[in-house]
Amino acid sequence: MRSFPAALERLSEQFARLPGIGGKTAQRLAFYVLSMTDEQAEEFADSIVSAKRSVRCCPICQNLTDLDECAICADPERDHSVICVVAEPKDVIAMERAREFTGVYHVLHGVISPLNHVGPDDLKIRELLARVASGSVEEIIMATNPDTEGEATAMYLSRILRPLGVRVTRLAYGIPVGSQLEYADEVTLLRALEGRRDM
Amino acid sequence: MRSFPAALERLSEQFARLPGIGGKTAQRLAFYVLSMTDEQAEEFADSIVSAKRSVRCCPICQNLTDLDECAICADPERDHSVICVVAEPKDVIAMERAREFTGVYHVLHGVISPLNHVGPDDLKIRELLARVASGSVEEIIMATNPDTEGEATAMYLSRILRPLGVRVTRLAYGIPVGSQLEYADEVTLLRALEGRRDM
Repeated sequence: MRSFPAALERLSEQFARLPGIGGKTAQRLAFYVLSMTDEQAEEFADSIVSAKRSVRCCPICQNLTDLDECAICADPERDHSVICVVAEPKDVIAMERAREFTGVYHVLHGVISPLNHVGPDDLKIRELLARVASGSVEEIIMATNPDTEGEATAMYLSRILRPLGVRVTRLAYGIPVGSQLEYADEVTLLRALEGRRDM
Repeated sequence: MRSFPAALERLSEQFARLPGIGGKTAQRLAFYVLSMTDEQAEEFADSIVSAKRSVRCCPICQNLTDLDECAICADPERDHSVICVVAEPKDVIAMERAREFTGVYHVLHGVISPLNHVGPDDLKIRELLARVASGSVEEIIMATNPDTEGEATAMYLSRILRPLGVRVTRLAYGIPVGSQLEYADEVTLLRALEGRRDM
């Protein structure tokens, strides 16, 4: 059976290895690369290698950075006694968008998920404990997602952190601002009622 | 506003330029590249550059090849007097799967589509006319898709090819083998009736 040139098949296979890219899409993307100019193709290839080469984890907070120590950890204006624990680097960006939090972060790079064979040892928990053990941390805010795995991870962490004499808090649950009450699910409404405050 | 490291943003932008890849998917793919080993990332980058470098159009049939002249055009066993005209390289693969056609191909690299600003001059029509002008071609089989643009392209080509004294044919229309009559559309059924044959 006749097929495409070997180099095209190889490129197609490379695209098909990416998550969420099926065989047909991979082929379409490979064809698109052929339609690029030489410069565009080289820039694309270079961006892959240089991202892989220059991006690493900050040795303190484990967030992605291309510096020796990430910009937030290196900032003397931030409150280094308050650590916000998030699951993924993109959660740091979401928190920073709120322009409210002045502490520092700790990125776990995942959540505990027995179904996906992710245990506590696969996350950056040891690094978090080391930061707490250094003594200057006063509060840890759990900001994992409010889903089953995020909750379980927050619970697990709070159980091992509390004996270390540090205050452990969780982001408030409630109805999202700008949403409509009639579309809120029961659990969210229950949590919103439980957490109601005087006005 | 804090964002991802520059190299990661750049990679994400490169992915977002690919057709059908939105911003969120591009970000997910960029993160996936970070999770690759150095070797995997380098292999991915290399496959882009080498596909772009080694794959070209066959100077005769315009199909994609990594040889000076594609394997089908270089094959003396094939009947070079019958040319099957297709829109895209993947249509050659589809035709070859049928293991029935022993002639050669001509790839137009598109179809005439005024809405997408694709005119006859944007397709490999001049190259097809040159092959016919060489004199050894007896039949041209139009195998563009049976949709509006494919039809229009086939009509256009047959009109400029017939004066050159070459036989121009079109693939038969009808109900697909293995399909169910109740799901066939009216136009296909009409064409199947028109094209009915004695058994």
